[in-house]
Amino acid sequence: MDHSSGSDVDESLETRLRRTIREVPDFPLPGISFKDITPVLANSLLFRSVTDEFARQFAGSGVSHVAAIESRGFLFGAPVAQLLEVGLVPVRKVGKLPHLTERVDYALEYGTAGIEVHADAWGPGDSVLIVDDVLATGGTADAACKLVERMGARVAGLAFLLSLRYLTGEDLLRGRRVETLVRYQPG
Amino acid sequence: MDHSSGSDVDESLETRLRRTIREVPDFPLPGISFKDITPVLANSLLFRSVTDEFARQFAGSGVSHVAAIESRGFLFGAPVAQLLEVGLVPVRKVGKLPHLTERVDYALEYGTAGIEVHADAWGPGDSVLIVDDVLATGGTADAACKLVERMGARVAGLAFLLSLRYLTGEDLLRGRRVETLVRYQPG
Repeated sequence: MDHSSGSDVDESLETRLRRTIREVPDFPLPGISFKDITPVLANSLLFRSVTDEFARQFAGSGVSHVAAIESRGFLFGAPVAQLLEVGLVPVRKVGKLPHLTERVDYALEYGTAGIEVHADAWGPGDSVLIVDDVLATGGTADAACKLVERMGARVAGLAFLLSLRYLTGEDLLRGRRVETLVRYQPG
Repeated sequence: MDHSSGSDVDESLETRLRRTIREVPDFPLPGISFKDITPVLANSLLFRSVTDEFARQFAGSGVSHVAAIESRGFLFGAPVAQLLEVGLVPVRKVGKLPHLTERVDYALEYGTAGIEVHADAWGPGDSVLIVDDVLATGGTADAACKLVERMGARVAGLAFLLSLRYLTGEDLLRGRRVETLVRYQPG
């Protein structure tokens, strides 16, 4: 049998991920089923396959920086930056970065939150791959895109381990290149 | 010239790190000079050298898991786990992990803080390398050691990018294997 096509490889990785990601009911609130990705991290071969796949997807597309979103995005973004041999930039919650920063605020269900990046992280001519574990409402990812573009760089794309399609993230990022290894449907 | 000895390589890496780590005065409080490690992450060759060095130091010592301490420890722990080809376990602030957890509290200057790990992260027979960016008071690192040992596993060692020797971290961890690439002295 021929298992060499990209499609077969992708299906196999998706199947392994669905089997490994753990559903935790009623976390962080009653009625919410949380997708726990820590079993993926614990499986060294599977974790490596995830970051290899992100790197393969964006190899040759001129990425100059990987932006990793605090906190779980750090776990995936760091290896991807090393695999692509580009700089790693942490995008953090407000007040964590010590030097001069750029900040974007975004709406939550109740109130707002902000993310920051160092003002010297990237600039015109740079092309940034944004990495996080989960695409849900897309608020943080969209804010990260705005941080990149406000500073004169471009967004090469966004890579997520999984997306929750019953939330609005994929709509908010429409027109951008979004790579997701597992998509959970409503229900 | 012969640059092949381990000692030369280590000195060179330390020199490059000292030149790259950025001192930010009065962060997070007046009078504190913060060691900003983001320029290390931004330099892909240097960042890779750091995680390669941690992996080299602990290769062959029977490490079964890398424990990465939230948040900046995630950035270093993830590549080290991949280089050692072992599972990656996030050690997180209280309330972030969705499944059953073990928790250890530790003293801060004012009050206490806690860290958690999933209860199925490791157990008897496992050997855990704890990774973080900075060793300062050692409170978090010592709590992580207690988490490992309470669950029946052993601590293979601890790896830090830098230590602040005028704080008490190295004393608190005395008797354990502690690897640090740059040590800042008082003054």
